[in-house]
Amino acid sequence: MHTLAVDIGGTKVAVGVCDENDTIVRSWTVPTENDADRINETIAGLYEKALESFDDIAAIGVSAAGNVKQDRRTVNFSANIPAWINYDLSGHIEDLLSKKVPVVVENDANCAGWGEYVHGAGKGSTNMVMLTVGTGLGGAIVLNGELYRGSFGMAAELGHLPMVPDGDTCGCGLRGCAERYVSGSALERFAKAAIRRRPKDATRLMELCNGNVEDLRGPMISRAAQEGDVLGLYAFNKIGEWLGRTMAAISAVLDPDLYVIGGGVIAVGDILLEPARQAYDRFLQASAYRPHAQIVAAQAGQDAGMIGAANLSVR
Amino acid sequence: MHTLAVDIGGTKVAVGVCDENDTIVRSWTVPTENDADRINETIAGLYEKALESFDDIAAIGVSAAGNVKQDRRTVNFSANIPAWINYDLSGHIEDLLSKKVPVVVENDANCAGWGEYVHGAGKGSTNMVMLTVGTGLGGAIVLNGELYRGSFGMAAELGHLPMVPDGDTCGCGLRGCAERYVSGSALERFAKAAIRRRPKDATRLMELCNGNVEDLRGPMISRAAQEGDVLGLYAFNKIGEWLGRTMAAISAVLDPDLYVIGGGVIAVGDILLEPARQAYDRFLQASAYRPHAQIVAAQAGQDAGMIGAANLSVR
Amino acid sequence: MHTLAVDIGGTKVAVGVCDENDTIVRSWTVPTENDADRINETIAGLYEKALESFDDIAAIGVSAAGNVKQDRRTVNFSANIPAWINYDLSGHIEDLLSKKVPVVVENDANCAGWGEYVHGAGKGSTNMVMLTVGTGLGGAIVLNGELYRGSFGMAAELGHLPMVPDGDTCGCGLRGCAERYVSGSALERFAKAAIRRRPKDATRLMELCNGNVEDLRGPMISRAAQEGDVLGLYAFNKIGEWLGRTMAAISAVLDPDLYVIGGGVIAVGDILLEPARQAYDRFLQASAYRPHAQIVAAQAGQDAGMIGAANLSVR
Amino acid sequence: MHTLAVDIGGTKVAVGVCDENDTIVRSWTVPTENDADRINETIAGLYEKALESFDDIAAIGVSAAGNVKQDRRTVNFSANIPAWINYDLSGHIEDLLSKKVPVVVENDANCAGWGEYVHGAGKGSTNMVMLTVGTGLGGAIVLNGELYRGSFGMAAELGHLPMVPDGDTCGCGLRGCAERYVSGSALERFAKAAIRRRPKDATRLMELCNGNVEDLRGPMISRAAQEGDVLGLYAFNKIGEWLGRTMAAISAVLDPDLYVIGGGVIAVGDILLEPARQAYDRFLQASAYRPHAQIVAAQAGQDAGMIGAANLSVR
Repeated sequence: MHTLAVDIGGTKVAVGVCDENDTIVRSWTVPTENDADRINETIAGLYEKALESFDDIAAIGVSAAGNVKQDRRTVNFSANIPAWINYDLSGHIEDLLSKKVPVVVENDANCAGWGEYVHGAGKGSTNMVMLTVGTGLGGAIVLNGELYRGSFGMAAELGHLPMVPDGDTCGCGLRGCAERYVSGSALERFAKAAIRRRPKDATRLMELCNGNVEDLRGPMISRAAQEGDVLGLYAFNKIGEWLGRTMAAISAVLDPDLYVIGGGVIAVGDILLEPARQAYDRFLQASAYRPHAQIVAAQAGQDAGMIGAANLSVR
Repeated sequence: MHTLAVDIGGTKVAVGVCDENDTIVRSWTVPTENDADRINETIAGLYEKALESFDDIAAIGVSAAGNVKQDRRTVNFSANIPAWINYDLSGHIEDLLSKKVPVVVENDANCAGWGEYVHGAGKGSTNMVMLTVGTGLGGAIVLNGELYRGSFGMAAELGHLPMVPDGDTCGCGLRGCAERYVSGSALERFAKAAIRRRPKDATRLMELCNGNVEDLRGPMISRAAQEGDVLGLYAFNKIGEWLGRTMAAISAVLDPDLYVIGGGVIAVGDILLEPARQAYDRFLQASAYRPHAQIVAAQAGQDAGMIGAANLSVR
Repeated sequence: MHTLAVDIGGTKVAVGVCDENDTIVRSWTVPTENDADRINETIAGLYEKALESFDDIAAIGVSAAGNVKQDRRTVNFSANIPAWINYDLSGHIEDLLSKKVPVVVENDANCAGWGEYVHGAGKGSTNMVMLTVGTGLGGAIVLNGELYRGSFGMAAELGHLPMVPDGDTCGCGLRGCAERYVSGSALERFAKAAIRRRPKDATRLMELCNGNVEDLRGPMISRAAQEGDVLGLYAFNKIGEWLGRTMAAISAVLDPDLYVIGGGVIAVGDILLEPARQAYDRFLQASAYRPHAQIVAAQAGQDAGMIGAANLSVR
Repeated sequence: MHTLAVDIGGTKVAVGVCDENDTIVRSWTVPTENDADRINETIAGLYEKALESFDDIAAIGVSAAGNVKQDRRTVNFSANIPAWINYDLSGHIEDLLSKKVPVVVENDANCAGWGEYVHGAGKGSTNMVMLTVGTGLGGAIVLNGELYRGSFGMAAELGHLPMVPDGDTCGCGLRGCAERYVSGSALERFAKAAIRRRPKDATRLMELCNGNVEDLRGPMISRAAQEGDVLGLYAFNKIGEWLGRTMAAISAVLDPDLYVIGGGVIAVGDILLEPARQAYDRFLQASAYRPHAQIVAAQAGQDAGMIGAANLSVR
């Protein structure tokens, strides 16, 4: 038996054929626009291509950046694709398939979290929370071996946990959401602010962005931090501190035994994790009187989302 | 079959014999000090007394104000009883019993939440959160029909959800915990501050506390609010607003379908719930694009904790 | 005797000849780039033109968007014009004049405040604070009939009064500055967030921006609010509340008898001032036990800055 | 010529005869209750006693913990003495004097600030702000050589500068006032919270308070910090950080060239001043592009208030 894993990203659709161990044995990546119909056609087309080599595809698992209903078929809404309002994504794709298989949709952060749970850093944990630190901040919750979706499919929106009343303006229309302080975008904001305030310390960062602060991007800050640059480290300390505070808030609700930190920003490893662990200790309620959750880096890599989507499609 | 329900409060121990429907058929209340040994003896004594009339007591369920480990026997620590540090409460009580039955311990807010779930406002919900607004703010989480305890028995410490960085100093040593803004104590603080700032509007509240602001207590504020007093209503609007904000934060994690609000302060009903519902709408992420949890008052009354403890003792 | 008033704005330079009552008797407006040399030449050119009709110009008063040193000649730095770092603006202009007169430079918000003090809403006050609510938030302080500049020319940077720790990111590199909550930009942010969260109430605002939220501008929000639109009024209530909080903070330092509110946003009058007055009452320390400052709209109009610059040039 | 300086404290009245250099040449201290009449009689009695040795007393300068009107005679209100509501303190004292001299009243923090300006660390400054870190946080502002009182005598209430929206509850009825974060009381709160959260590091502090956290007082924390104790230093770092943030806020309004830090807590010197200076640098707007105010410890000692009152009485 095989499954087809689909990851609908901002600019491209990645599709992979997975075996029974969720290992990707064949994969394609196709650039695409944020157009619902085009995306559906792309997926259906790649499914047909996969059928040429694999005649036992049992299901299609789709990882989508949007809120997915409890039916695991309908996208409630998405910040990226305007047409995805109360949108039967499974149905639209299934309609285009020559050979019918079920299409199971799941939120992208949930897919990544599940991927880490079954094949990555989350293996063996009881209650696991994954935080994906990318452009924004995604969340996934696995409780007693099951992905927790909430009553309406809106659980684990951890990037929108309110951390600061009247805080930084979030794209969602609220203020002070966690992802305004813990994300690649936040990393850039902290670094840019530091450059403005401490121009004498900004030589390396300015060099990396060719003297144009507006062009400063996360990977440049990561590189500077890894070289020991003081402002680069400052920016990671800030998002690390807020990551720790965010986890301390989550622990007041869920008391998990494991936090897995993923996303592009985690490439720096302990440069992010160490300040996060320290802040977690400092802001956890009753810190001195309780066992602490472990805080570790993700292991399943960039394919965690596809692996998770594949696995979930036949559960 | 019967069970014995025990509620260890700040100044008294309440004990009740419950039938198979968790109905309390006989009960005693004994004043006691915050002394661990005395409490154990009191419970054992009342158990012997209960045995005189009921020979089929299958278990003792204990509701305790403290953090209870996953073994449902050991109290990790308690703000009230100094000796309860890593304390085998079940073992100590069991040692004193002439006829051995298992003693099952659970956190008091969890007991009240479970009581509401099985016999009160929570019946029929899928994922329920209970917030007990008393002197402090307690929390309980029921997911898919099971009480959720977390990995170390520290889940649902919702009174210590961090709401305001650098906010009001909490007894736990952190700042800005939810219970500093949502609790009977918070109600008093908001009312006292309002008296100080708006002395001309304070006639009724000053009357109720006999002119001594320091003597102002929650029930006086409730009474004033129910009479329509402007400062009384102001104080409830404030804790109501923060209750709504707190629930919005919890929904970012758990996305439940029901919030049950209990504790002494809920006696005023919609005077608390209406501002809470409005703030929940205002601060919930993606408020306009998702189904909303219901927010209702508790129904099981003051005995919710005992009912819950009884029911849990034989699960 | 006449004076020449110069207002260096973001996209144009306005120049006016003022009589002894600071009345503008002749004026020119010239578009210009943010280039220091071009600006100097433009000013010198218009001065020559003014000389053709007025042979008794005693001084040139310049209103500049930047921090001006105590010498009233040097611009410390400016967010708009890169070359203005420790820049002798007076000297550069004086060098270009055929007939030498002194050039006196002052910060633009200070000029507007002084203009209001000598010829507008500030007349007769003892200690006056002006807040200019434009794209950002400017401040001016007049104490006992004198413009207060501070020890280094940096006083009255009231737009950067810190209001919210960890708050909205400011262009200055800090967080939570007052101008992030009180300004035309803040008005737009509040309105856009409200549209996102309450789409059903957003009909009128969406109409005014032709369905493109990104195109929403302050004057559209002002118009909607004046028509009674609920989201338009919401946005003004928010910046009004923060304006009141900001004034309450300033009063803890300065205890003035008058606040004058100017800038483009004040066109809506009490729609801004009423929520500001209410919040001022609510957040002023010892509000019930002290005389309150008056809070009024500016009266000197768009020329307040030039009038102020003219008057200051010969003081 | 001599003057009589009077300092009305919480539990005692101190009176001193000062010569023309404001040097105290004779002094008495009398315990007293917070009763207005008794205080007046005590002052008048000591004045008569002073007259026995000094026949050229020209005026009585009174330092009072309360808000003093611009007439320098009337106390608007006081947190300590209930009868002082709109109370003609000068008149009441003058009525009791056998030989009439003018009685000039000034707020105690203003007196201390003026004392530092004329005879202490403030000498030679242009615009000086004094912050008195005692039980609470007092403020005084000297601009261009004059004590600045504001339009209604309420200026320089710097302890009530709002620093944290929804922050720590202040006795004044507001939240987040500076003195909740910068004061001896704040020092105790930070230390107690640290003890609760880090019991293993609390050995020395627990020793100093004889094992009873509630008895921990500021001087014990000072002592521990001076010995290098980690929690003692932590508590000073916290109030130091907030002192720096408070000064950064004041600089956005006043841009002074000097901050003088006084009060009992300053006895630790750089243990408080160093974190304050660092936070000032970090939170000052345009920190890298402007001259910075100096931040120094007070020098005039405990008598600064009396010295200031004496000097002001004949100005």
